[in-house]
Amino acid sequence: MAEVRYDVLGIGSAIVDIIARTDDDFLRRFGMVKGTMALTDAAQAKAIYDEMGRAVEISGGSVANTMAGIASLGGTPCFIGKVGNDKLGEIFAHEIKVVGVDFHGGENRPTKLPTATCLILVTADGQRTMNTFLGACTELQAADLDAERIKASRVIYIEGYQWDTPQAKDAIRKACQTAKAADRQVALSLSDPFVADRHRDELLKLISEDVDVLFGNEDEIFSLYQASDLEGAIARLREARVLACMTRSAKGVIVFDGSSTLAIEAAPVAKVVDTTGAGDLFAAGFLYGYTHGRDLTNCAKIGAMAAAEVIGHMGARPEVPLKDLLAKNGL
Amino acid sequence: MAEVRYDVLGIGSAIVDIIARTDDDFLRRFGMVKGTMALTDAAQAKAIYDEMGRAVEISGGSVANTMAGIASLGGTPCFIGKVGNDKLGEIFAHEIKVVGVDFHGGENRPTKLPTATCLILVTADGQRTMNTFLGACTELQAADLDAERIKASRVIYIEGYQWDTPQAKDAIRKACQTAKAADRQVALSLSDPFVADRHRDELLKLISEDVDVLFGNEDEIFSLYQASDLEGAIARLREARVLACMTRSAKGVIVFDGSSTLAIEAAPVAKVVDTTGAGDLFAAGFLYGYTHGRDLTNCAKIGAMAAAEVIGHMGARPEVPLKDLLAKNGL
Repeated sequence: MAEVRYDVLGIGSAIVDIIARTDDDFLRRFGMVKGTMALTDAAQAKAIYDEMGRAVEISGGSVANTMAGIASLGGTPCFIGKVGNDKLGEIFAHEIKVVGVDFHGGENRPTKLPTATCLILVTADGQRTMNTFLGACTELQAADLDAERIKASRVIYIEGYQWDTPQAKDAIRKACQTAKAADRQVALSLSDPFVADRHRDELLKLISEDVDVLFGNEDEIFSLYQASDLEGAIARLREARVLACMTRSAKGVIVFDGSSTLAIEAAPVAKVVDTTGAGDLFAAGFLYGYTHGRDLTNCAKIGAMAAAEVIGHMGARPEVPLKDLLAKNGL
Repeated sequence: MAEVRYDVLGIGSAIVDIIARTDDDFLRRFGMVKGTMALTDAAQAKAIYDEMGRAVEISGGSVANTMAGIASLGGTPCFIGKVGNDKLGEIFAHEIKVVGVDFHGGENRPTKLPTATCLILVTADGQRTMNTFLGACTELQAADLDAERIKASRVIYIEGYQWDTPQAKDAIRKACQTAKAADRQVALSLSDPFVADRHRDELLKLISEDVDVLFGNEDEIFSLYQASDLEGAIARLREARVLACMTRSAKGVIVFDGSSTLAIEAAPVAKVVDTTGAGDLFAAGFLYGYTHGRDLTNCAKIGAMAAAEVIGHMGARPEVPLKDLLAKNGL
């Protein structure tokens, strides 16, 4: 077995978020579904951006946010994602390295596509609605995924979003096989209820074959399993026998260990400013605990703590060292 | 005389700032002179960026910041500057339009050079040290400067920084002639002590021929006039007979009206976080007052108020509507 170099290796989209406040009317006007992610082409992205208010640009991308969270907790993450050969790509790479993530991203195979951007509209209730232009991310392929790094990671972490990009999806499926063959674990985030719906059969197959830890919020897990209530969802998870974390916003999280459930309360937040990254940071905290031999209750509490930090400000990456919060909260 | 459309039309560099905290050692290691601006090439910029810590990207550019400040005060500014045909250029254009500045920038003459960036290092004392990669800004030329817009502006506002870019400098000198021929006024910011030193003779000639209002901090004005103390500088300003504002950080500002001086105190600041944009926002406040018929004391007080707002946070553009502060401060 290869020597362990990373707690978690994440493979996902390398995205710079462009975040602005808005109101419900704006979402309606563009036909957006609040709280979800939609893919856009360049023309649609421009139309939305032209109408958006003052924005801030902050490196994001669901898996990348999780890796940044693990680094902030003191773990050893690696992130593989594809950026464009442009300034935003440089900025993305800089920001993820500087927080302590080992970043790899097709440096040897330059792309002509721009770095991915995500227009994020945040409403007064703190909810985020996302419009992603994938750009260079669509070119992620098997050659970008270093098998040696995968074998040297306790867990690889992947996202449902990639199922919208056929070439990337295939590369990631191959990465899962590499990980499993090396006796490593696979964690999957469902990403979005529409993603779960669009790719239900493939994701269910992946979960039954390769996934050890599943992350999703209520909407995503309900959507994947076509469940209409919590009991129905738990029944389906029981059949799948997968370790699953179902995040429920202010209601906390339910951890299902394959046979029984554990309910953990949400950590207190003074004011919910922007929920972008809440799920990503929950996964960061959980996986940090999981790769450090903590019990499931402790894993979930660290996740809840990390999620609480990130929703207290704009942007999906921690602003304070989560390692310090860990100590402060006795976790 | 053309109808007035703008209080102030600014011509300058369109720059996205990349701002990070650092310490004095870092500045020394790269041979930077604290508080000044140095031009860098792409390789040097990369070397600095690789070593910089976590950064935030915020639209900047001295003249552009001043125009954003005038818009925030409720005035009618226009900004002409050159961005690259890239995402940072789009972001710059978006951010300046969205705050209420009429932005024009070579949309018809696409450039292959990237949008300018400025690596700004902020030390614990709040001082900013800048490293600018001019990129697309170097292509600003006469064709970018719409004579009709210049004639329709009460004041045009230009920056000493442009004297480092021969083509841009010539375009701006022509703009000054257009403005003066239309009986409009010209305001000049000296920008930087080294700029004032490098281009002393040309700037002195411009001041004596075309400039109605001169902005500079103590270092810049001392450098321009090779003065070693306040009395010496004032004596030289007296000879030049120019309306001049000499900003002096916490010591406030001295306004010289061509014959006598007026000392205005700095506005109180709870905590100096980042002095980037202090001079730019002083100029914004002063020019807002100046183009709205206020007396010089009032102009300078508005300037001091705007400067105080911008040094209380990272980034060189106001974060709250200065119009509201104007009312709140009885100005």
